[in-house]
Parts: sequence; C-alpha cells; structure tokens
Amino acid sequence: MAVSKIILLLVIYSSLLFSSIDAFVVQDQGNFWPLPKSYVLYNSSIALKSSVFEFKVVQSDLNKCRILNEAFKRYSKIIGDSLSILLRHGQNSRKYSHHHHHSLRQVLDPNKYLEHLEINFSGLCETLPYFGMNESYRLEVDTEKAPRTAILSSRSVWGILRGLETFTHLLEVSEDGLSLAVRSASIDDSPRFSHRGLLIDTSRHFLPVDTIKQIIDGMEANKLNVLHWHIVDDQSFPYQSELFPNLSGQGAYDPRLLVYTIADIQAIILYAAVRGVRVMPEFDTPGHTTSWGFGQPGLLTKCYNLVNEYGPVNPINEDNYKFLRDLFNEIIHIFPDGYLHLGGDEVNFDCWASNPEIKNWMTNRNMTDYAKLESFYIQKIVDIVEKEFRTNTIVWQEVFDNGVNLYNSTIVQAWTGNYEKELDRITKAGHKALLSTCWYLDYLETGGDWKKYYKCEPLSFQGSDEQKRLVMGGEACMWGESVDETNVVQRIFPRVNAAAEKLWSPKDDFRNIHQVESRIDVHTCRMKRRGIPAQPPNGPGFCL
Amino acid sequence: MAVSKIILLLVIYSSLLFSSIDAFVVQDQGNFWPLPKSYVLYNSSIALKSSVFEFKVVQSDLNKCRILNEAFKRYSKIIGDSLSILLRHGQNSRKYSHHHHHSLRQVLDPNKYLEHLEINFSGLCETLPYFGMNESYRLEVDTEKAPRTAILSSRSVWGILRGLETFTHLLEVSEDGLSLAVRSASIDDSPRFSHRGLLIDTSRHFLPVDTIKQIIDGMEANKLNVLHWHIVDDQSFPYQSELFPNLSGQGAYDPRLLVYTIADIQAIILYAAVRGVRVMPEFDTPGHTTSWGFGQPGLLTKCYNLVNEYGPVNPINEDNYKFLRDLFNEIIHIFPDGYLHLGGDEVNFDCWASNPEIKNWMTNRNMTDYAKLESFYIQKIVDIVEKEFRTNTIVWQEVFDNGVNLYNSTIVQAWTGNYEKELDRITKAGHKALLSTCWYLDYLETGGDWKKYYKCEPLSFQGSDEQKRLVMGGEACMWGESVDETNVVQRIFPRVNAAAEKLWSPKDDFRNIHQVESRIDVHTCRMKRRGIPAQPPNGPGFCL
Repeated sequence: MAVSKIILLLVIYSSLLFSSIDAFVVQDQGNFWPLPKSYVLYNSSIALKSSVFEFKVVQSDLNKCRILNEAFKRYSKIIGDSLSILLRHGQNSRKYSHHHHHSLRQVLDPNKYLEHLEINFSGLCETLPYFGMNESYRLEVDTEKAPRTAILSSRSVWGILRGLETFTHLLEVSEDGLSLAVRSASIDDSPRFSHRGLLIDTSRHFLPVDTIKQIIDGMEANKLNVLHWHIVDDQSFPYQSELFPNLSGQGAYDPRLLVYTIADIQAIILYAAVRGVRVMPEFDTPGHTTSWGFGQPGLLTKCYNLVNEYGPVNPINEDNYKFLRDLFNEIIHIFPDGYLHLGGDEVNFDCWASNPEIKNWMTNRNMTDYAKLESFYIQKIVDIVEKEFRTNTIVWQEVFDNGVNLYNSTIVQAWTGNYEKELDRITKAGHKALLSTCWYLDYLETGGDWKKYYKCEPLSFQGSDEQKRLVMGGEACMWGESVDETNVVQRIFPRVNAAAEKLWSPKDDFRNIHQVESRIDVHTCRMKRRGIPAQPPNGPGFCL
Repeated sequence: MAVSKIILLLVIYSSLLFSSIDAFVVQDQGNFWPLPKSYVLYNSSIALKSSVFEFKVVQSDLNKCRILNEAFKRYSKIIGDSLSILLRHGQNSRKYSHHHHHSLRQVLDPNKYLEHLEINFSGLCETLPYFGMNESYRLEVDTEKAPRTAILSSRSVWGILRGLETFTHLLEVSEDGLSLAVRSASIDDSPRFSHRGLLIDTSRHFLPVDTIKQIIDGMEANKLNVLHWHIVDDQSFPYQSELFPNLSGQGAYDPRLLVYTIADIQAIILYAAVRGVRVMPEFDTPGHTTSWGFGQPGLLTKCYNLVNEYGPVNPINEDNYKFLRDLFNEIIHIFPDGYLHLGGDEVNFDCWASNPEIKNWMTNRNMTDYAKLESFYIQKIVDIVEKEFRTNTIVWQEVFDNGVNLYNSTIVQAWTGNYEKELDRITKAGHKALLSTCWYLDYLETGGDWKKYYKCEPLSFQGSDEQKRLVMGGEACMWGESVDETNVVQRIFPRVNAAAEKLWSPKDDFRNIHQVESRIDVHTCRMKRRGIPAQPPNGPGFCL
C-alpha cells in the first residue's frame, strides 16, 4: 500500500504548557465506538456520494437474506441522512470544534469516490441472534490505489452487521464541506465478550413499543447484543398472556393501553433480531411479584405480619408450579431466545416466616432456613425450564449465594456487593457469570458520569484463567423507578456506551482518556443524527 | 351554599398498621400545583363538555385583548385535549391507581353541565409582563345550585392567566369515565413572591427555539413568571447582534444554525409574554466571556500567566466601555423587560494579575486589590445601564460581596455558600435579593430529588421583617453543561415545580408530604398531557 501508516502518532507537545501525563505516545483511535479489536488507520480518505454508493454483495444467492437486505437499507439511510445533516453545517462551525471532533478535513480528489462497499460473506443466512454467535469481521478500506476498494468480510451475518456499523465510523466530513470522506483503514474485529446486554424495566414505568425500538437502535450503534427485558415486577404486569389474560387484565397499570400484546412482543423481537440483538425476557419470581397476585389468586403467600397483605410466590402450593409451568411454556414459545431469566433476587423472608402453613410445612420437613425454602422453589422452577423445556436459564446472584443446585448452562448475574469477590465465588464454583454490579444506570451523579462505568473491568477479580473464561459478559441495568418514555433513552445513551466498549473492546488499562472522551462525543452526535436522543456525555459542546 | 364543606378531612386510620406522623388532621389539597393562597374545596362537581364549554367575558370591549383571547384559545385546547386523553383511558386503569391520582370519581348528574367560565375582568389590557405585576385572582365554582356558575375574577390580565391555569387543576375524570368533572371550589389566590424564575443557559449547549417555547409552556403550568436567559458564556455566543455580527459570527458554535436571530428572540419574548412570563437576558461580564473575544479583538485581557491566552474583559481599555454601551443599548431595545442581568460571577483574577499594563494602571491609582478592579469595572457598567439607559439590573452575589456600589433598584442574586447568611448580609445592606443557591437543577441525585428543592425556605434567615421584604423571590437554575435539547425539558420538569410552589404558595412548614407527592404526580401527568415531557417525579407509576 502506498499510504503512509500512522499506527503511532507521536505526540510531541510544542510547549511545556500542555505537558501532562498524556504526553506519551498515543495511538490514533479514530472515531470508533466501541474500539475494534485491532485496526490500522491511514492518513488518506476518499469521497463517498450517497447517490452512487451501494453495498455490493458478491454472492448472488444472498438476495433473499433478510438480515442482510434490511441492514443494507438501514445503513444506506444512515449514510444518506448523515451526509445531508453534516453538509447542512459544512464548514461553518467554529474552528476550534475541529480539534474537538477529530475531523480529518482532508482535501479530497474531486474525481475519485467510493462506489461500493463490497460484502464478502461466506456463511449461512441466519435469522435469529443467539448466545455465542459469531460477530467477527474484517473491514479493509484502501482509498489510494486504483481500483479503490472497500471490502467487508465475515463468515456470519452478525459479523456483517457489526462491520457495517464500523464502516459508518470511518465517515467524516471532507475539508471542503461538500462530501463525506471514508477513511482508509484495515480492521480485524471481534468482541471480547459474547453477552453484552442492556436491562430495561417495563413494570415500574411502562415503555411504549416505539421507545423500546429506539433503545434497540442505540444498542445496535454500540454493538450491544442482548435486550434483557425485565417485563414484569411488583408494580405492574404489562405482559398480556394468552393463557392467563387476567394477569395483565388485573395487574397492568391499564389493561388496554399499557400492555404488550403478543403482536407487540413479536414486533420487538423481529426489530431486534434484524439488528443482531437478542430479546431475553425475565419473569422474576418468587419475589417482586405483587402485580401477579391480582390476576392469579392463590399464587402469593398470605402474610400474617401486618406489613403486607401478600408476599412472594407461595412455594408450598403445588398448584403454583402447574401455573408457572403453563405460563413459562407460553413464554418460551413467544420469546425464541435460548435463555429465560428467572430472577430470584431480593426475596423477603418475613412474609413466609409469618405464615403458619408454611412454618408447619417446613417443620414437617426439618427445614429451618428460609433460604432453603427459596432454593426449594427455585430448584423446581429451574428444573421445569431447563429439564422439561430445554431452555437455558439466568438467575440473579442470590440464587447462587443461597446454594441452589444450578445446571452448567445456567448463568449467574452479579448485581450487588463486591463484584470481584462475587465473580470469583461464582466462577470458582464452576458457574458461568454475567456482571452488572458496576453498571447500574439508575444511579445518578452530577455531570457526565459515564467514566465511572468505564472504570469497571469484568476480569479484574482474582481467579484462574479457567474461572475468567466463565465470565460470559455483562449487562448495564436501566431500572425503571425514575424513567419513562420521556427520559429513558436519554438516560441510557450515551452512559451505556461505557459498558458497551468495556464488553466489546480488548482490555486496555492505559487507553488515553481524552481520546475516549472525544470518541464518545463523536459517537453521541452520530446517535443523534440517527434520531436517538442521546444526552451530552461530557461538558459543553454541540453536534454538527 | 348547599354543598358540604370539607375544609378539613379528618383522617382517622382504621388500623395501627398505617399509623405514622401523618395521622394528623390533613386538609384536602385537591390537585393544585402550586397550592393557592387560600381555598375551600367542596365535595361536589359538575360535568364539563368541551363541545359546549366556553370562556365568557362579560365586558364586550375586551374582544381585542390579545393576552386574554390567546389564553382562552390555549386553555380551550388544553381542556379539550385533556378530555380526549383522559377518556381514552376512562375506567380501565387499575383500581389502586384511583387512590394514587386522587380522583373524585363522583357520579355526575347527566343533565347538568358547566356551560361557561365567566371572566370577570376589570383592568387594563396589558401586553407585557413586568416585575411586580398583579397576578391575584378569585375563582368560584358553584356546581350544586342552579344557575351553576364558575366565575374567575381579576383586576389584571396576569391574574386571569393564573386563574385559568388553576381552573384546569379542578378538572377530574367523572366516575362513569365519560366526562370531565369540575370540582366546586372557592379560591382566593396571589403569589408569595413577585419574582419566580427559571434560568436557562444557551451557551454551554444551544437550545432550539422550540425547546425554549416548551420550557415556557411548563413555566406557565407552574405559575413561574421570569425566564432568566443566560444567553452567552465562555463556550459560545449564540446571540446574533445587529451592531456586532462578528460576536456570533466568530463566537457561536455555528454562525448560521446555532444562533438566535433577533426574530427568534422576539418570537420567544412574545410567546412568553402571552403566558405571563418575562424574558430577562443575562450578558455576563467581565468573566465568562471567552466566546466574546473571537469576534471583538481587544475586549479580553491578554494573560501572561501561561494558563490561558485571554482572561476577563480588560477593564482598563476605555474602548471596551464604548463597545459595551453600544451592545447593551441594542440589547435593552430588543428585550423589553425592565431588568438586565449583568452577571459578575466567578471572575478569575489570575489573568489580570499577570498583565503588566493592568498592574501598572493599578499602581498608578494605588489600587492593590483585584476585587476593587472588578468593582471599578462593574460600577461603570451598572452606571451605563442604570443611569443612562434607566434599566434595572441584577447581579450575582460576588458583585455585592466585593463591595460594588449598587443602586436600590439592583437585585442581588444569591447562588453560592450559605444562603441564609448571604441573604441576611444582602438585605441588611438594604439591597433587594433573589435566591438561587438551593435550586440548582444541574445537581443530580438518584431517584426523585425534587424534595431537596422543596425543603428550601427563602425567608428562613435571621433578619428583620424589613429585610425579608427585600427578598423579591428566587430562581431555579438549569445550567447547561450536561443538558441540550434531548434532555433539558425532562430535567427541568417536574424538579423545578418544587421551587415554583415554594415561591408561589404561602409558607407552610407542616404541609403533608404525601399529599405534596401526590399533587406533583398529578401535575406531572397534566404537563405530559400538554406535550411537555416531564419526567417521573417520584417512584414507579403511570399517567392516564
């Protein structure tokens, strides 16, 4: 290649004024988010005209591959829209923003432009994303020599999706302000962790379907691949079951308007699937179930402790296991994902302890510990889902902490306490683990607080390599107490971006934080141009 | 009147379970926000059909009063929209929400409905709101006896505006879910403080005109009456001056798209005026002026301290006073409000101290204290605006703290440190004061944090009655570092509501906090029905 490599941009500050610990050798990180596994950026670029640009699939038999076709349409629109928005501004913005936005602003040869991104795909046309799917790809943009080529290669449709996203990160406004430029680069990328999730909570506040779709748009932009849908909880039951319509009929905030019909759910699953995002539902039991009780009498434990009328699911009522078997059977048929989250967190034992029938039942079995009673319940539920339905399960950490006998396929999700100690304990016991403890998006602080999420390192715990291989990834959690459709997207993005990069990009403790700040700024503006109302990540500024 | 008064609703809890410090006698506070000065609510209501309901002005010569006509149109739409939204939900929502939303749910006589709200107005048709305007009104709704009447009386158009807002707070969904009901009430209302403001900051992030209009909508809903427009600062200069186009040409983030033209500003002022909201601009000097320097060479002090290139306005350059006189002259002609905020906060003295010309100038005048130099500057600016332009001024507290000789009409705005001590000092010196210290909306905490703003009492400081009369009100401050058009409205509302009620309603340290929570919930839903994306104030829940 005739282009000059600038793998290492040696930053020599011209004055002592700017000396700081950052005055080391700094790699040019471009405008990526998240950073690819490995990449070389070149100091040359070529114009892209959306009127003539197209995605060109070499294999003719892929015309019917829905995931790819939808992706080409989607990213053509993204590129076209970006172009029109960026060109509205063109050269007018204040000079010092150039530094801020890392624009290349190179003069382009007006007679050269990139005609297509060649898609070199050699896999199956899969339709549903799944745990462990192949998301790796290679992207080569060579703009200097004729024929100027851009080639995206992957053996998986999911890799093509991730590569298309990365391709848009190579786009910049040209120096003359009249066209988009594509930067030359050589990228070899794959994720560090397979499970990169975001939890949403539609029980504390209902979220309209369009809001959830907007969240999925933002997830795709950040290469997140699991929407963990905490769909029901104490406050409301918006899941409209076909078998048990009373659950939402009595338990939703509004049984007509504030529910998810099966058609709604299927639309969300499809919307997510074509973006390479799994939709994993959580039906949390035995606690967090107040709203279930309205439409399913007998399900909840009657409390005699004068604080609440009803407590967790009654674990000694055999009818309840029949009900849950039937409900979960419906759920696993509606949600095609291979995993069902069973919850199991924050079970309050006071109500069980107040109930004479439960006490009697336990005495008859020489059971004295309520954690054991919880284990008894969870074990039965896990058995139904794992053994009968052959569906993998995820549980919150208490289930492990309380000693439930888990299957190898069950993932334990850490969310509270010291996460390093917890991940060590979970993986030492041979269980797979997910990390959420350090990525609670409902905790607020003044200013741009994404940096605290960026400090979290999933494999920082003491433990063997074998243990660390059991960490499947993590999830940021957007619990719903303080968010509804007015503010949830803004609160997720760009704060979740921090977790997204930690889960996708290689571990790098010495990454230059000023470059990270700049990249998250650029990516936030990118999301805004796509209609995702991401809030400002750092301090003052503006988007083109 | 034949209706039964329920001034005091004696809450006798049926069980010890619910005993708490709230089990006192609690007045029914209805669904008001902010609470009126005095009111009696009756346990009767009458249907309102938006198809036949109208505002009926007794005086025929008021047909041409723009403020009133626009208000009638606006509130007719609000009532019509509320009706259609509420009736979509009707009786379907879950029962336990009834308690939450304090619905009356009374069965209404289907043959009776309110045909009009009689407007009894006896003042001038004023067009621009001003400091100290009369906002008092009386509202009487008598629904039991024929003829059923609702009468809104005021001697001021501003009182009529406030009364129309309050009238909508008497609307509830009827028990049959088929109509709006208006609750009988007798209300005598006027604000506790004259100056009830909200500061917005369009320098750290540009806010589109439509966003500012939406903020004004929310201000009207909360009876706030001053939009303090911190329009320029270090980061950008979006004010497009006719006399000095280079200021925004060089100092705005984008000189074409991220500026406020004079037409934009006039549209905002008019939009605010018809809602009884003043627009008071702030042009903060001598600090916070970095962006001014790009388009006005010589304005800023050259620094020799190797930290910044330029510092605050250069106070020894006489040309700068000519420039500021001309600029302020333009500003006071574009902004009709009687007050101009001159800023004066956070002046960094290091740059002045580094400049040999300034040091020399000070030595020649036996001046050793940089606070004195700041005073010298501010004094000249205040003199221009107050004496030459006969426009009142507001300054941040440092100007007072540093001993500038202020006019009686100048208001000092407290924003930092111990606000009780500061208000005592300001008013002891005979100056008028505004409080902002406890109402900084940019400080974030997890969960619904409006309660910390609600705890702030403007007259809690030690001081004479005469001193307390000098407190003209306060302002909540939405500084712009972390907010742009994606999240600013959500972050202001309903958090600013707390300050709005403290500034409008009578002092009441024993107000039942659970009722306040319920009222702010209801008012948040009311704002959402009007298209203002107010975020959830408390915990989980939903809006009809």
